[in-house]
Amino acid sequence: MSEMGITVKKSENFSEWYTQVVLKSGLADYAPIKGCMIFREHSYAIWEKIQEVFNKRIKEKGHKNVYFPLFIPESFLKKEAEHFEGFVPEVAWVTTGGNSKLEERLAVRPTSETIMYATYAKWIRSWRDLPIKLNQWCNIVRWETRATRLFLRTREFLWQEGHTAHATKEEADTEVIEILNIYKDLVENYLAIPVLVGKKTENEKFAGALYTTALEALMPDGKVLQMGTSHNLGQNFAKVFDIKFIGEDEKEHYVWQTSWGITTRLIGALVMVHGDDRGLVLPPKIASVQTVIIPIPYKDVDKELILRKAREISENLQKNGISAVLDDRSEYTPGWKFNEWELKGVPIRIEIGPRDVKKRQVTLARRDTIERFVVKEEEIVDTVTKLLEEIQSNLFNKAKEFLEDHTTTVKTYNDFKEALKKKGGFIRTCWCSNSTCEEKIKEETGATIRLIPLEKEELFSNCVYCDEEGKEVVYFGRAY
Amino acid sequence: MSEMGITVKKSENFSEWYTQVVLKSGLADYAPIKGCMIFREHSYAIWEKIQEVFNKRIKEKGHKNVYFPLFIPESFLKKEAEHFEGFVPEVAWVTTGGNSKLEERLAVRPTSETIMYATYAKWIRSWRDLPIKLNQWCNIVRWETRATRLFLRTREFLWQEGHTAHATKEEADTEVIEILNIYKDLVENYLAIPVLVGKKTENEKFAGALYTTALEALMPDGKVLQMGTSHNLGQNFAKVFDIKFIGEDEKEHYVWQTSWGITTRLIGALVMVHGDDRGLVLPPKIASVQTVIIPIPYKDVDKELILRKAREISENLQKNGISAVLDDRSEYTPGWKFNEWELKGVPIRIEIGPRDVKKRQVTLARRDTIERFVVKEEEIVDTVTKLLEEIQSNLFNKAKEFLEDHTTTVKTYNDFKEALKKKGGFIRTCWCSNSTCEEKIKEETGATIRLIPLEKEELFSNCVYCDEEGKEVVYFGRAY
Repeated sequence: MSEMGITVKKSENFSEWYTQVVLKSGLADYAPIKGCMIFREHSYAIWEKIQEVFNKRIKEKGHKNVYFPLFIPESFLKKEAEHFEGFVPEVAWVTTGGNSKLEERLAVRPTSETIMYATYAKWIRSWRDLPIKLNQWCNIVRWETRATRLFLRTREFLWQEGHTAHATKEEADTEVIEILNIYKDLVENYLAIPVLVGKKTENEKFAGALYTTALEALMPDGKVLQMGTSHNLGQNFAKVFDIKFIGEDEKEHYVWQTSWGITTRLIGALVMVHGDDRGLVLPPKIASVQTVIIPIPYKDVDKELILRKAREISENLQKNGISAVLDDRSEYTPGWKFNEWELKGVPIRIEIGPRDVKKRQVTLARRDTIERFVVKEEEIVDTVTKLLEEIQSNLFNKAKEFLEDHTTTVKTYNDFKEALKKKGGFIRTCWCSNSTCEEKIKEETGATIRLIPLEKEELFSNCVYCDEEGKEVVYFGRAY
Repeated sequence: MSEMGITVKKSENFSEWYTQVVLKSGLADYAPIKGCMIFREHSYAIWEKIQEVFNKRIKEKGHKNVYFPLFIPESFLKKEAEHFEGFVPEVAWVTTGGNSKLEERLAVRPTSETIMYATYAKWIRSWRDLPIKLNQWCNIVRWETRATRLFLRTREFLWQEGHTAHATKEEADTEVIEILNIYKDLVENYLAIPVLVGKKTENEKFAGALYTTALEALMPDGKVLQMGTSHNLGQNFAKVFDIKFIGEDEKEHYVWQTSWGITTRLIGALVMVHGDDRGLVLPPKIASVQTVIIPIPYKDVDKELILRKAREISENLQKNGISAVLDDRSEYTPGWKFNEWELKGVPIRIEIGPRDVKKRQVTLARRDTIERFVVKEEEIVDTVTKLLEEIQSNLFNKAKEFLEDHTTTVKTYNDFKEALKKKGGFIRTCWCSNSTCEEKIKEETGATIRLIPLEKEELFSNCVYCDEEGKEVVYFGRAY
């Protein structure tokens, strides 16, 4: 038990707690190669759910999935200067193929703008070819030198990257926001993690973008985690890769482009935001196993009867669209199973013993509140259905409350520093729009501007740093 | 039109025909990097269907999807000598990360046995931890120096690789065959491609396996294409990576392992087997678009009426589980659309013009036979449903007939060479089990033993090469 369970408290040693939950719940493991990780079945199933939800949404909007090559010639990466500067420090380079040294070294994809857009230039001729709306799910490599954090900072991770090309800036703007909204829906309504959305400053935007929008969530340690980004690339890449089309006006134009992505770090956020001292807590809508049924055979004589009843309940739940696993392994005790499934974060446990069979009832245990209660057999499906919804919204509401509690509005730099030190979280304040102030604050406190709200908020003071006229209400925070 | 359509005949220049179909139907494109390809939306949708079918089947059997790292340290690859010899000539090596030269170079995954099994050794302690049944969908790199053939031979491709560990050889044997049968079901009943299944000879087995089973299909040019493999790895890797468990007998044992895979080359097979001079022909069960509805607005006055009817038909088909696309683009003529959708291989086209609306009918065109006929509005769903089944089995039956026509039983080496030269295909003959004969035949004719049938067939002659006693009935062929 002690080896299997989490041995530190979330509130006492957050970082160690996180690592233990990830490893012991079977979400992931360190790979036998530095900086890399193994996505075990329990996390990959969550990733498959995320793919399912997101694929459905973008396919409805007419996006299509594709797959572009893993390797990008160095000369391609170099074409857009800012982009190259942004990525080159963390590129893994292939220099040898078989027994031959390559003439030009190849980047293992750190992102795919350049390889994709070189091809878009070939595909796009006329306005009839627009828009192009493609997406790919793939692995990404960035040669991190900082310490590995499972899901949050590894040399390889999984993501989706969408890349679109449009005839006008307006269409590209719309695309950026529509995708941002799909991300927000996915993260808030499935992962049950509340987010702030907004625009990045010039300092923080994507290397090569016109502007970047993003979702930011608050972790229990008061630090901010970027949950996804959606960029308007303007015509920067179009000019570099010569992506032009003949418009309905019969003139030549450069296309307007967007790119956007979410990564497997979302799974790390899920662990941090909802987990507790017993392990993982999964929101029902993202859990591949929503209910686990554990037979409790006190006496051998009742065993077959209990199992039969357990199977009946399991089938009935599944018939009603609720995923259920019957844990009928005989080599483990019920107590051991309780701990294991709690560790894995399954939303509802259903216990069934000999007395329950006799009384035509079961005991339900909800993972989020650890409450247990007895339910009549005929009410199981209804109760579980309602409970799953309740758990989903309870998890979201708790996280939302935490976010609101840890968003502090300040007018002075002293208050800024104090709030950051005492509570962390988001610091809402006014800023003069000058990047010098932004950089000074980063140097002195480690906090950066996470977002400028999309809908301009009403100014309430001068710039928190230089005391010149405030131009923007912004949200600062210390980021992962 | 002439630029868009296929300009060579399948029967006259098979290789050029193949490339044109792949490129012009929008399945794939060459990447702007040598030896690599782009899986465009039309092929990726087929890959997603294959994933859907296969995932369902293996998940029912208790397999789970995971994701292991892309990079494999050279020392890992070297641990199993045969395996290393087999793969090292085509490995792409990462030697630099960021600005630093790596201490040990890293292989870009040519297959994942070594990285996975190093981890299995850590995970497996007791018989309770067995079996382990994991699968991953990922990209694979093999540094081909031969000419690129889209889907068939590229430096990067996509696949699934399953890796299991069991307590006994019998369990591993069973797993190998169960997976082989799932592959056969997928390939024959979804891709509509008949296959032979059997065991590989020692010369042809997977590097490091105890034995290899495979599926082999016949292409229209008389060459044989390997469609999937399922290996019993025995205890070879277990001994090298020290994967041991304490059995119920309380003694230590090495595990028995299997690995198995199918790749995106299946899409290439689909093109070759079913395509015709107009382009791709997709079996309905693997087509993401099963029916396309094309309104034919002769006179502007009827346009809205026709469109409304077309929408109604489209919705009705979808309600009945048939995927339908309404091609209402106004910038293309109906004739242009007919050609495009034929090129893309959509099984059924539904044409609807003003006269059809008036008569409450439509015209159906089936892609496989190019037949067209009129159907009453109220019979569309029934007719389409039946037709999709008919097209599926027609495609399979045609390919099956071709395979049977091109399987020649021979007793002498002269007949062997003549059959190979005249018809190609499978040459069924007897063999003494001596690899020298196998190698001589390969040298002299280019044909290899593709399979030894799983169920031993009755011997009917001496060895086709050396005239010593025949030990096995085998199937030779020239392979891709």
